[in-house]
Amino acid sequence: MSLIRYNHRNALADVVGSAHGITTAALTDMLERGARCTKGMLKRSASTPFAFLDLPDDDKTLTAVHALVEQRKGTYDTVLVIGMGGSSLSALATDGALRINQRAERQPKLRMIDTTDPDAVSGALMGIDAQRTLAIAISKSGDTLETVAALALVCQWFEEAKCKLPRHLFVVSNPEGGFLNSFASRHGLIRVAMPKAVGGRFSALSAVGLLPAGLLGHDIDGLLAGAAELRDEMLKSSPSANAPLMNAAIHAALLRDCGKSVSVFMPYASALRSLGAWYIQLWAESLGKGRDAGGRPRACGQTPVLALGPEFQHSQLQLFLEGPNDKLFTMIEIERFRHALPLPADFPYADAGAPILAGKEMGSIIAAQLRGTEQALTEQGRPNVRLTVERLDAKTLGALYMFFELQTAYAAHLLDVNAFDQPAVERGKALTREILDKP
Amino acid sequence: MSLIRYNHRNALADVVGSAHGITTAALTDMLERGARCTKGMLKRSASTPFAFLDLPDDDKTLTAVHALVEQRKGTYDTVLVIGMGGSSLSALATDGALRINQRAERQPKLRMIDTTDPDAVSGALMGIDAQRTLAIAISKSGDTLETVAALALVCQWFEEAKCKLPRHLFVVSNPEGGFLNSFASRHGLIRVAMPKAVGGRFSALSAVGLLPAGLLGHDIDGLLAGAAELRDEMLKSSPSANAPLMNAAIHAALLRDCGKSVSVFMPYASALRSLGAWYIQLWAESLGKGRDAGGRPRACGQTPVLALGPEFQHSQLQLFLEGPNDKLFTMIEIERFRHALPLPADFPYADAGAPILAGKEMGSIIAAQLRGTEQALTEQGRPNVRLTVERLDAKTLGALYMFFELQTAYAAHLLDVNAFDQPAVERGKALTREILDKP
Repeated sequence: MSLIRYNHRNALADVVGSAHGITTAALTDMLERGARCTKGMLKRSASTPFAFLDLPDDDKTLTAVHALVEQRKGTYDTVLVIGMGGSSLSALATDGALRINQRAERQPKLRMIDTTDPDAVSGALMGIDAQRTLAIAISKSGDTLETVAALALVCQWFEEAKCKLPRHLFVVSNPEGGFLNSFASRHGLIRVAMPKAVGGRFSALSAVGLLPAGLLGHDIDGLLAGAAELRDEMLKSSPSANAPLMNAAIHAALLRDCGKSVSVFMPYASALRSLGAWYIQLWAESLGKGRDAGGRPRACGQTPVLALGPEFQHSQLQLFLEGPNDKLFTMIEIERFRHALPLPADFPYADAGAPILAGKEMGSIIAAQLRGTEQALTEQGRPNVRLTVERLDAKTLGALYMFFELQTAYAAHLLDVNAFDQPAVERGKALTREILDKP
Repeated sequence: MSLIRYNHRNALADVVGSAHGITTAALTDMLERGARCTKGMLKRSASTPFAFLDLPDDDKTLTAVHALVEQRKGTYDTVLVIGMGGSSLSALATDGALRINQRAERQPKLRMIDTTDPDAVSGALMGIDAQRTLAIAISKSGDTLETVAALALVCQWFEEAKCKLPRHLFVVSNPEGGFLNSFASRHGLIRVAMPKAVGGRFSALSAVGLLPAGLLGHDIDGLLAGAAELRDEMLKSSPSANAPLMNAAIHAALLRDCGKSVSVFMPYASALRSLGAWYIQLWAESLGKGRDAGGRPRACGQTPVLALGPEFQHSQLQLFLEGPNDKLFTMIEIERFRHALPLPADFPYADAGAPILAGKEMGSIIAAQLRGTEQALTEQGRPNVRLTVERLDAKTLGALYMFFELQTAYAAHLLDVNAFDQPAVERGKALTREILDKP
């Protein structure tokens, strides 16, 4: 059985109407174009934009991370990641998904500096012991302004605690060039390279995601195995059995033809909150472009929105059901949670108008909520698709990363934009520098 | 000086063009209609939908909360809130904004059950001492399915730890009717009423928000004082000096005339992350309606999106600057953070290509990022407004709550929808119950 099951029935024109669902003709057209993209993926070389597909096979990085984990075992309680966007979101997403009840465990904990908010940065360093902290500075270019500023503060913090940097600080960056590399050389720090051809938002399965995850005690072998399995199965499938391509086709067609300008990422699992933040960058930055792949001006993009299962039913569902029909929903279902959590038998559920709760487990309530929301959306002609994983573990998480990365690469191809650049971001950075430079 | 300063220059047609900014004619029209709404607000009675405006004057609730805080002082380390949506988001928002570096303090900590995810619910009860926990079950109707299920589990957890419920459990609900009230009577629990006329998403300044905040040690007097001050100043101002009305007018006009279907809430302060989640419910549920105020079918609504200052520059800015021009940005600026956080002098900033960092404080970097983003958005014809508060404290937080509640009430009036109902949500609940009821 596949690691991820996919159901797109509620996105079909036959089900939600042709103004809101994908027609057979549009789907056929999209899948044919997608098949050409699959060819490029299968023929990829290390220098193509599809290099992210090779990350699960990078045994060298896996071995290096395992060696560092083995070498430092028992010497730290906290892993402190310094990085922005693509350099931080996958560490958060993996830790969020795989950590089982953070509070009760002895596993090292994750702290993050992913902002210049002075209170947040101070907070990240507060209450932890520098002697028992391993920091990782991550930046693809090696020159990210915020990362440099945070690194300066963290180095000062280590020095004040009389910690030697090489014992407490790793660097993840491009194999050559950039300040992080020269800083690492000067101080004798251990470096783990990220492949040059892979951009930040596609780097979850590179050293960027693996080094923090490994140091935090997560199963990085499982992560890579799940990603490889999903990739291999999908790329050799027929277009209509290639679920990331199908989901890309539906997103691209409904954006182009039906005005679905918003992609709602709706996991029914609190542990996937940070995966949602990761998805938001992947989708926003890859498709949000001012020019098509040929360089002609055209504003493209779909706004990703995170809506966390039961919580957001109580905050956004009114808008989703009755507001403008401009959204496409991707529901994520976990079939089995780690805790079954049966409700106590001796509670007056009937008095509460909820006799249906008697004898239930929490897991069946959240499942019913997902199905109820799905059905309500469909009745209102709101297109929605569902991804189902049996349980949330390293293997299925790896598969989810690969699923959405493939989906994004396909969607960019179908929408005719470059998935792998981010030209506009430079302008904001330049203006920030100008403003900082004023007296 | 006002608690909140407002700048709407970058939303004007003169600045970003008439395809993307508000024209003088549209603004004049909107402000005239808003002035009629102000009259209704000034003439409000306890039964009108504007009852939320009276919450800052509810001395009875304030006194009750102070008495409970005084009475239970020193008997608990954890406040456990059980509630969904409007019953949980303001507790999270207030604690997030006012807690200064959670990790290092002795202040009681907040735990939340706001989901049916079995792993999240188990996690909420893990590693805390039932004997040192005060729980608050919150539901306006008193019958919310998820709250009943969680309450059953929490009561079992207290009983297993031999805790007497009246010492450990409070109830916040409508003054009469509903299961929570009868349950409280039966077990002799202390109840704090929330006013009948105020809906969940407008209840941050009622017992729903105040009881958790008070028990957590936050300055609830300041919260109410700030809200009252902002309200009084704005309602007696001329329409063009009434900033919540101005922001509502800009949102309503740009949604109606310029296709700005997305409202981006963009605080440059990590402490306002949960206020963003609160804003999302307020905006989505109040404006997302399938009928106008007269009952005629018309899909209305604007999708709220949270984008947290520096973090999201690295994940969504590419989309914001070059993607479809369908967004209106509300930036929130904090002028002074609690920590100045000067960067160390002896770091090789110049080698990092960032000599501008030398001698800087983190607070000036985040300020420059906000201004840089604002300028980049404006150059690209993307309308944006800015709210500035001098510092983030209880008084300014209270003012922010009142600002966005006023803005929402005005926007609903200008868009001709009922801000205070949520008819669609019932359908999803009914379907969930049906599905749970199947064998």
